[in-house]
Amino acid sequence: MHWSDGFIAVDWGTTNRRAYLIGSDGRCLAEMEDDRGILSVDTGGFPDAVGAITDRLGDHPMLMAGMIGSNRGWKEAPYVPAPAGLEELAAAILWVEPDQIGIVPGISWTQGEAADVMRGEEVQILGALADGLVPAETIICHPGTHNKWIRLENGRIATFRTVMTGEIFNLLKEHSILADLLKPPAVADAAFEAGVRRGFEQGDLTADLFSVRARVLLGKAPAHAAASYTSGLLIGSDLRIGLGFAGDADIVVMGRPELTGLFAAALRELGREGREIDGEEAFLAGARRLAELLS
Amino acid sequence: MHWSDGFIAVDWGTTNRRAYLIGSDGRCLAEMEDDRGILSVDTGGFPDAVGAITDRLGDHPMLMAGMIGSNRGWKEAPYVPAPAGLEELAAAILWVEPDQIGIVPGISWTQGEAADVMRGEEVQILGALADGLVPAETIICHPGTHNKWIRLENGRIATFRTVMTGEIFNLLKEHSILADLLKPPAVADAAFEAGVRRGFEQGDLTADLFSVRARVLLGKAPAHAAASYTSGLLIGSDLRIGLGFAGDADIVVMGRPELTGLFAAALRELGREGREIDGEEAFLAGARRLAELLS
Repeated sequence: MHWSDGFIAVDWGTTNRRAYLIGSDGRCLAEMEDDRGILSVDTGGFPDAVGAITDRLGDHPMLMAGMIGSNRGWKEAPYVPAPAGLEELAAAILWVEPDQIGIVPGISWTQGEAADVMRGEEVQILGALADGLVPAETIICHPGTHNKWIRLENGRIATFRTVMTGEIFNLLKEHSILADLLKPPAVADAAFEAGVRRGFEQGDLTADLFSVRARVLLGKAPAHAAASYTSGLLIGSDLRIGLGFAGDADIVVMGRPELTGLFAAALRELGREGREIDGEEAFLAGARRLAELLS
Repeated sequence: MHWSDGFIAVDWGTTNRRAYLIGSDGRCLAEMEDDRGILSVDTGGFPDAVGAITDRLGDHPMLMAGMIGSNRGWKEAPYVPAPAGLEELAAAILWVEPDQIGIVPGISWTQGEAADVMRGEEVQILGALADGLVPAETIICHPGTHNKWIRLENGRIATFRTVMTGEIFNLLKEHSILADLLKPPAVADAAFEAGVRRGFEQGDLTADLFSVRARVLLGKAPAHAAASYTSGLLIGSDLRIGLGFAGDADIVVMGRPELTGLFAAALRELGREGREIDGEEAFLAGARRLAELLS
């Protein structure tokens, strides 16, 4: 079957995309990354945007995951309802070209009036599971633009909750009255830890965010610590929600290392452990396993 | 004394400004509003920007309040520490031209590591007090870009707490993944009330905000209700903080009528009353009383 001869796996997000050429032995032979996220591509522009990938990585069958399958992407791949594993995802792939270009669907969850969705993280999470990096029953925290708290049960994504932590931080950094103060990178220092404790204990996030500026204006905190403190406030507030979701279960933190490092540090500050896993490795594992299921 | 011969009062904010010509009998004889908020004026451009006011309203002594006195404004008028009333503000006016052009300072509050600041609202609040519109002991909720919860004691601003509700809503509306859904105006309908209850009870704001989109995608809520529901979530979350601040005290809601209307509706949904007062009237009352103190 041709998927075992090699293929291209694409993680196509809102603002960026990464593509990997996977060889017949499962190794990653080449990769590329650019800023042609879905929001930068006009309706009708996706075939050209895909051409830019095959120009770089060659002509191979292609599996795409992430926001490319959303209603703002190329073609909408309807969500698979949780609980779902890689088998359900493989069976629901939306074929743009039969058996040549497929879009992996996201996962939805509903309960009463509550509802949540993910696109992209599911390939990483279930890939890590397929490679034995996480157990079949665990809690995964997946920071990013939208942080996901995910419960794995029986090797499938059972429930999850999304927290807008990353997007709120970016909005504040780009466009808010705090923008100047948030220019430096956030690091896991003492100011970050103080923010984590405050955000976790207090639950008054929208007031505490304003206090960041007031504390600097009135000499209660140095300007250079504001970014780390604010990041801590938002992540502490996120953990307030997430630890309620997780209970006493073990927690894996998966994603980009600079983000998993901050979340793991915040968990430590609250007396919990978060084992870090690189999301890129997990994505490749998931893509390989999906290709096996197609072969 | 020349202040009693008439003067111009300016409420100069971040994105807009309003100026009023007050006659010798205290009546407002003329007014203007434009979008030359402090962020649109270059350093060094303030004398010209003031000239645009005197071109319209004539050459009179001028009292300015709001962000014009901030470190991003024309000249920085240092905060007066709470507790403070109009007498303290009048004594601390920063004179750009002696007895001709004055900037009213804001008020600061600190306690331990906590800190808060206001600029502009204080003239409205203390003006309403001077005109007998609010009692000397009360709680005032002042919605705007940054909502303020203020405790008046003995006719002075004693303590206050700022919640970033308006700015967060605007950031989400202008720049976030919710932007499309937040285009319609927020109104105090059933979706708003449901958001208020959820925001007040839950305390999981950053998760509930993401659910706005997920609920629409999965058919749990209509897209046209998203703006009102989101406004309700943010205001409910704000009231969670504010009612903790207010306790059982009577609440006055002061500011622009379209905002005080939403906050008053949210208070009613939670079984509380919020008496509405137009912030513009209160500002004029405060400016008149300050001019009397200068005469």
